[in-house]
Amino acid sequence: MGRHTLEYPKTKDNTVRRHNERAIYALETIHRLINSSQLLDVSFNPPDSPFPVILPMIGQMGSFDRPSADLGDPMDLYLHGYVSSRMMNVARATDKDKPEGGDKQQGLPVCIAASHVDALILATSAFNHSYNYRSVVLFGYATLVEDEAEKMYAMEIITNGVVHDRWKTSRQPPTKAEMQSTSILKVSITSGSAKFRDGGVSDDKHDLQNEEAQNSVWTGVLPVFSSIGEPLPTTYNKVEVPANVTNFIKDYNNENKEYVLSAVKK
Amino acid sequence: MGRHTLEYPKTKDNTVRRHNERAIYALETIHRLINSSQLLDVSFNPPDSPFPVILPMIGQMGSFDRPSADLGDPMDLYLHGYVSSRMMNVARATDKDKPEGGDKQQGLPVCIAASHVDALILATSAFNHSYNYRSVVLFGYATLVEDEAEKMYAMEIITNGVVHDRWKTSRQPPTKAEMQSTSILKVSITSGSAKFRDGGVSDDKHDLQNEEAQNSVWTGVLPVFSSIGEPLPTTYNKVEVPANVTNFIKDYNNENKEYVLSAVKK
Repeated sequence: MGRHTLEYPKTKDNTVRRHNERAIYALETIHRLINSSQLLDVSFNPPDSPFPVILPMIGQMGSFDRPSADLGDPMDLYLHGYVSSRMMNVARATDKDKPEGGDKQQGLPVCIAASHVDALILATSAFNHSYNYRSVVLFGYATLVEDEAEKMYAMEIITNGVVHDRWKTSRQPPTKAEMQSTSILKVSITSGSAKFRDGGVSDDKHDLQNEEAQNSVWTGVLPVFSSIGEPLPTTYNKVEVPANVTNFIKDYNNENKEYVLSAVKK
Repeated sequence: MGRHTLEYPKTKDNTVRRHNERAIYALETIHRLINSSQLLDVSFNPPDSPFPVILPMIGQMGSFDRPSADLGDPMDLYLHGYVSSRMMNVARATDKDKPEGGDKQQGLPVCIAASHVDALILATSAFNHSYNYRSVVLFGYATLVEDEAEKMYAMEIITNGVVHDRWKTSRQPPTKAEMQSTSILKVSITSGSAKFRDGGVSDDKHDLQNEEAQNSVWTGVLPVFSSIGEPLPTTYNKVEVPANVTNFIKDYNNENKEYVLSAVKK
């Protein structure tokens, strides 16, 4: 109320150049899209290869120091991965590699991306085909979380990001072995942006006036839905499907369907 | 028939370390997954930033020199992008930056990734939660396609990758302006791998024997489906939904549903 909407500053990394009318820099929109993405693609540069490497990971925005932060506030990104993976090793090496008596280094430079495809847009010309989509990109420095309480906080928000309230409705507390075998990366965000495409077909004038084309080419939108089906319990499950799971499925299916169909009409 | 299955050689870039029993190196599996991905995340290093950049792009595997190549053969990846984008500029610069009298440089090092989430796996412990998924990664060198015929070939396979047979059922031929404003990147692949997770919940023994946990935690699988809805024609469309679109929707929906449900049972 009365507060300004925070936006990520435009840098050479995050500035959307093509179709910049579709660009969004608002923290809230970007953070919400990250949190609703089942997988995030995380890119980093290993020290021994010409290629950047992309790993799919699970993550959520959070603020351990200020847990009351909302999605419109500056936040960190917590990523779940594995001690043995190459990325963790690089992040740990970077972390330790601090100058004599100097400050801790800022971490491993990473780029994080996620996209939802909402519709296939079939235009008269192949070159005007498009997708409705929501995509997001973040840039920042990743470090390994060492603090046990912060690791626990990250595991809780990441688990709840998969299914709302799943953390406290799963077996608690975590065992020592579980905590030890789990590594969490914390990304301190430097910039980010999102890009949304909505609406219907956008045909060129000369194609609309091309009678032969209009009499032969079907034009329109094919909506793409993501949905969650009936829960399939394990053979040994003894519990009714809990309300948080039922509600999660209902909300997931409704929100996706409504967004996809409303986006076409924009 | 009688031919060996080709596999990408394991390098330090593409070797799957964590859960290596889930790794797949067969060209056919990897290429098929790329071709069925609506978006590919492409990562590269711009010359003026510490961060790798990820751009979502559309692409298909192909072989312009040997169009009869099948998915099990060595192939190139064709990516559709924009002249104005940062990546294209870098690829073009790299392309021109050849040594005096020497060979053309090999191009811009890129990593390409795509993932499908097929199910959410809810275990007794939060730490045994997982996804069923299919993910793929490719590494290679990207160059701009200059040859008009090769650009046309790439546009055709990329358009048909969105909806089977869409190229020839859209307005033909492309205009000069369309061809000029379109840039295609060709990635010469050096290595790749895929990783699949299927099956159901995998609980630890101590959780299965924990009566309190088994009496309170719901365990099971939530299948995630991707589906295409009823086609929504433009207001000016004059054509019946063509068979290739109808069949594409039916195949897309059936194949996705069947895969997701059969993967859970593995």
